Amino acid sequence: MEKTRIIVDCDTGLDDAVALILAAKHPALQLDSITVVAGNQTLDKTLYNTLSVCQLLGIDVPVYGGCDRPLVRSAVNAGEVHGESGLGDIVFPPLKKKAEGKHAVLHLVDTLLASDGDITLIPVGPLTNIAMAMRLQPAIVPKIRRIVLMGGAYGFGNVTPAAEFNIFADPEAASVVFSSGADIVMVGLDVTNKTAPDMEKVERIEKLCNPASKLCGGILRFLLRNNQEIDGPAAGAMHDGTAVSFAACPELFSVKEMQVEIDLSHGPCYGRTVCSEKGKPNALVVTGVDYEKLWQLMADTIALYGE
Amino acid sequence: MEKTRIIVDCDTGLDDAVALILAAKHPALQLDSITVVAGNQTLDKTLYNTLSVCQLLGIDVPVYGGCDRPLVRSAVNAGEVHGESGLGDIVFPPLKKKAEGKHAVLHLVDTLLASDGDITLIPVGPLTNIAMAMRLQPAIVPKIRRIVLMGGAYGFGNVTPAAEFNIFADPEAASVVFSSGADIVMVGLDVTNKTAPDMEKVERIEKLCNPASKLCGGILRFLLRNNQEIDGPAAGAMHDGTAVSFAACPELFSVKEMQVEIDLSHGPCYGRTVCSEKGKPNALVVTGVDYEKLWQLMADTIALYGE
Amino acid sequence: MEKTRIIVDCDTGLDDAVALILAAKHPALQLDSITVVAGNQTLDKTLYNTLSVCQLLGIDVPVYGGCDRPLVRSAVNAGEVHGESGLGDIVFPPLKKKAEGKHAVLHLVDTLLASDGDITLIPVGPLTNIAMAMRLQPAIVPKIRRIVLMGGAYGFGNVTPAAEFNIFADPEAASVVFSSGADIVMVGLDVTNKTAPDMEKVERIEKLCNPASKLCGGILRFLLRNNQEIDGPAAGAMHDGTAVSFAACPELFSVKEMQVEIDLSHGPCYGRTVCSEKGKPNALVVTGVDYEKLWQLMADTIALYGE
Amino acid sequence: MEKTRIIVDCDTGLDDAVALILAAKHPALQLDSITVVAGNQTLDKTLYNTLSVCQLLGIDVPVYGGCDRPLVRSAVNAGEVHGESGLGDIVFPPLKKKAEGKHAVLHLVDTLLASDGDITLIPVGPLTNIAMAMRLQPAIVPKIRRIVLMGGAYGFGNVTPAAEFNIFADPEAASVVFSSGADIVMVGLDVTNKTAPDMEKVERIEKLCNPASKLCGGILRFLLRNNQEIDGPAAGAMHDGTAVSFAACPELFSVKEMQVEIDLSHGPCYGRTVCSEKGKPNALVVTGVDYEKLWQLMADTIALYGE
Repeated sequence: MEKTRIIVDCDTGLDDAVALILAAKHPALQLDSITVVAGNQTLDKTLYNTLSVCQLLGIDVPVYGGCDRPLVRSAVNAGEVHGESGLGDIVFPPLKKKAEGKHAVLHLVDTLLASDGDITLIPVGPLTNIAMAMRLQPAIVPKIRRIVLMGGAYGFGNVTPAAEFNIFADPEAASVVFSSGADIVMVGLDVTNKTAPDMEKVERIEKLCNPASKLCGGILRFLLRNNQEIDGPAAGAMHDGTAVSFAACPELFSVKEMQVEIDLSHGPCYGRTVCSEKGKPNALVVTGVDYEKLWQLMADTIALYGE
Repeated sequence: MEKTRIIVDCDTGLDDAVALILAAKHPALQLDSITVVAGNQTLDKTLYNTLSVCQLLGIDVPVYGGCDRPLVRSAVNAGEVHGESGLGDIVFPPLKKKAEGKHAVLHLVDTLLASDGDITLIPVGPLTNIAMAMRLQPAIVPKIRRIVLMGGAYGFGNVTPAAEFNIFADPEAASVVFSSGADIVMVGLDVTNKTAPDMEKVERIEKLCNPASKLCGGILRFLLRNNQEIDGPAAGAMHDGTAVSFAACPELFSVKEMQVEIDLSHGPCYGRTVCSEKGKPNALVVTGVDYEKLWQLMADTIALYGE
Repeated sequence: MEKTRIIVDCDTGLDDAVALILAAKHPALQLDSITVVAGNQTLDKTLYNTLSVCQLLGIDVPVYGGCDRPLVRSAVNAGEVHGESGLGDIVFPPLKKKAEGKHAVLHLVDTLLASDGDITLIPVGPLTNIAMAMRLQPAIVPKIRRIVLMGGAYGFGNVTPAAEFNIFADPEAASVVFSSGADIVMVGLDVTNKTAPDMEKVERIEKLCNPASKLCGGILRFLLRNNQEIDGPAAGAMHDGTAVSFAACPELFSVKEMQVEIDLSHGPCYGRTVCSEKGKPNALVVTGVDYEKLWQLMADTIALYGE
Repeated sequence: MEKTRIIVDCDTGLDDAVALILAAKHPALQLDSITVVAGNQTLDKTLYNTLSVCQLLGIDVPVYGGCDRPLVRSAVNAGEVHGESGLGDIVFPPLKKKAEGKHAVLHLVDTLLASDGDITLIPVGPLTNIAMAMRLQPAIVPKIRRIVLMGGAYGFGNVTPAAEFNIFADPEAASVVFSSGADIVMVGLDVTNKTAPDMEKVERIEKLCNPASKLCGGILRFLLRNNQEIDGPAAGAMHDGTAVSFAACPELFSVKEMQVEIDLSHGPCYGRTVCSEKGKPNALVVTGVDYEKLWQLMADTIALYGE
């Protein structure tokens, strides 16, 4: 089987770390590089966290720092979910791995332009880096094979009643991406909120007894312990990991073509992904997932870190 | 059993006619009067239709004409759903019944002020009349027992991806009503879209063989025949009748307290009922209905027109 | 000379009081009645102030209380300009004059409908009462001879950089009025800000030595003393009195036809009167005034209170 | 006298061409390079026009192509003012001068980072390139000596009643720039609309009889002939040239510190520079100009092309 070549754009972040675990080892994926953006926390923290996760798990790909603030709006972060450090209570050994000197946006532009059109982008944070790259060099758009993004919702939001965090944190960037004409898969809260594990699943992961399973277990326990009040039954949901899982195994998911417009109105729906089954579709919106198979994929992939 | 005293505010309208059928005869309800507003069609048509339905079925209550346009925004109607006349292809005998000389808004103000706080309002059109009454005389608010309204959605809209017709047709009026502090039940598309009948149900109604069953059957057949393209599986849904049914038999429904804010932003979500399970609740939002029992209630009530 | 029959709609308010002084005595005007609205202060205070001014000066016309809050938006007032009472430090004798029992909006509707189309409305507060009357009974619009309103600006605003207080306090009502098709004269900050008196003018008024000159003098001194910081060189400006002066002597003013749209966007220009010299004109916008003649008109009219 | 080192960012454009004439020869300015953006016309046209003007007049500085569309909004251009080509009826000889291979945004970032903080940016088109550079590399902001931009208005707009073209064409970029903390001079319509020449001035320029005077004369005659209907007495105004003139001779202008916020509301004031003399100032707004001295500066500078 040919592997899908991917670049993950993340704001690590608890569930971003799990996304990286999957992205680096799933047999269907070939991780080209990682770009980092501000979002769950400030850029210095999301970059530190990303590099630390890579070092801890031996993920040996280049990491590029990107935009430290949204395209237009003022910055928001998600410290109340991801903690002051952005990675809960996880503590890492001293960091030796270094970010590349090149800006993430320039890396995206150059890599996509030089590619054969075989790269799938998996943005799991605000879409600032992707939008900046598209505006700086519009010629990259036809070079993108697909964008599988974690963000948005056609149902309830999380950071506001109407909006999901990644889109709310940079609605203008999201508007650039969704109106770009690229092939987009939107993995939103409608599906990711249904991915929270129970303790049995956490323990199954932990029993794999390798660095990745230990990190993943720590993250899940932190989320289950701390986010019940904010997220209710969705606490512990693998938002970002679900997007990577879609890139690896789309057959686990149900989807529907929809027209997605970003609300830029500054009203109560600012940052909402306004979805419609009518109109001209510009995204494949994920509507469901085989929950057991998703967690099996997680466990199988994490198990590979022990080999 | 004590009957619930109601005033129906409608923009008749196909499903409004069914709502009037239920409102006038359900044993749990006592229809005090009917107020009419522009919405599905212009006021002259919705008033004509309302009077004609009353005359045809012997509904002997006073009918008051109200506002002929929205509070602030420019007028929209729903001619593509309800037809040029607002009542599909239904033809009525010459109209003898007359509207009262008093304005609907003044009737609402005076009747509510004079009441013992026992009146439930059932608005099944744009909320213009209700909002105008609240602004003209804020003292009516604590006199309202409950407002059971057809409008809004926490899921997809119908007239736009985000908004339901009744709210979209007068979002500013909806904002006045939802922020008034009145006891509000929102019967939105989330539940009414699930009420469309199959042909077996239409035929069951028609077999009742009385003027109301004949009118109701004609309306249902028109909706099923003409609105498949617009409404899909929701074609024929008893939007307005569902609100009246809630007032008669709330036990058929599941509900959830929510905070409902109206989007007044003029963006893509203009007129959306932005619902949240967090925040300070200001409405009871209907989330489900016992479909079979709802149609049983319909049939049972329509049967009473034969007595 | 035939007198212009007027109804003043006010939210008394310091400069509203001066407007009433002019409206009641200028030989070119015949004051039919006064309607009151919330604005500079809450309705109970603006009504009390209006009645007190009438009682003090023997202005013997009926006064009608109207809307106690804006059409849609939440209430704002201008206590920082007009003081806690709405009338600065002016103290009135015990109030005997009573408001009529009828609502201001109903008075406007009934009076206009019964008129020969000869009534000029002079709203010098938020346009809530006027908009409510237009929505309740659209047939009044062609009965209005002219609306000479104090509000708006094509230059800088006062309550925000973009918006003038009367419009900002109820932009949705302003939108109803400006889009009604009525003959509208907009007396905005562009001209009223140039009407502030110097001490010589205040003393000239005071030397007239009658109850009106005393009240007017007290108001001007309060404004000049307290509002330098807020209004700068415009402190003491006769905003509302200028509108009444236009109704009495339009020849003192220069005007330009403009298209005026109200910004309802909830952005930084919410409540702005967006004026354009292109487009289809819907208002006569006042652009200048003969300052000396305006104050002469004031003095001459106030002098009549001594007769 | 030390020269002010400048980069002009333009969307040439009739008055942009005049701006380049001044920027390249005024003795107080040292033109480092030119960056080009879409605006008055599409990027291919504005780049062609810029290169053609440079070739025609022997302006020997590098020219960099930049962004071909706005940061977020959909593209608008000003073909009705600047003609299909963007340069009226001016015809150029075959183009040999070539744009640099580097993107304008990267040139801005690298040049500013490498500078001693001595570069003044003179953007006379939409602010897309500048905003992109600021977002890609926030560290450039403290390196910018000053931004003297043509754009905005505290009075009437031109492309809409509220907004000036350059800001309206990319309000989100303008918002990034005005909120960046950079030292900003806003040369808006309030002053540039007062710079239109009469025929005597055009003829004075033309009598200088050199390539620059010929080009400038042709541009002025085209504007005076074609834009009377659109711009009225402002037809022929030297919008962009005025900004360059400010950079060269600020003593010709009167200014006021203001707080400038960009209206991003999508309402009727979308793209307005909402100016306030209160609040925290973030720009020096030009309020007036010595008209005769401005045209003397123009003539003196154009005369230098004959040497």
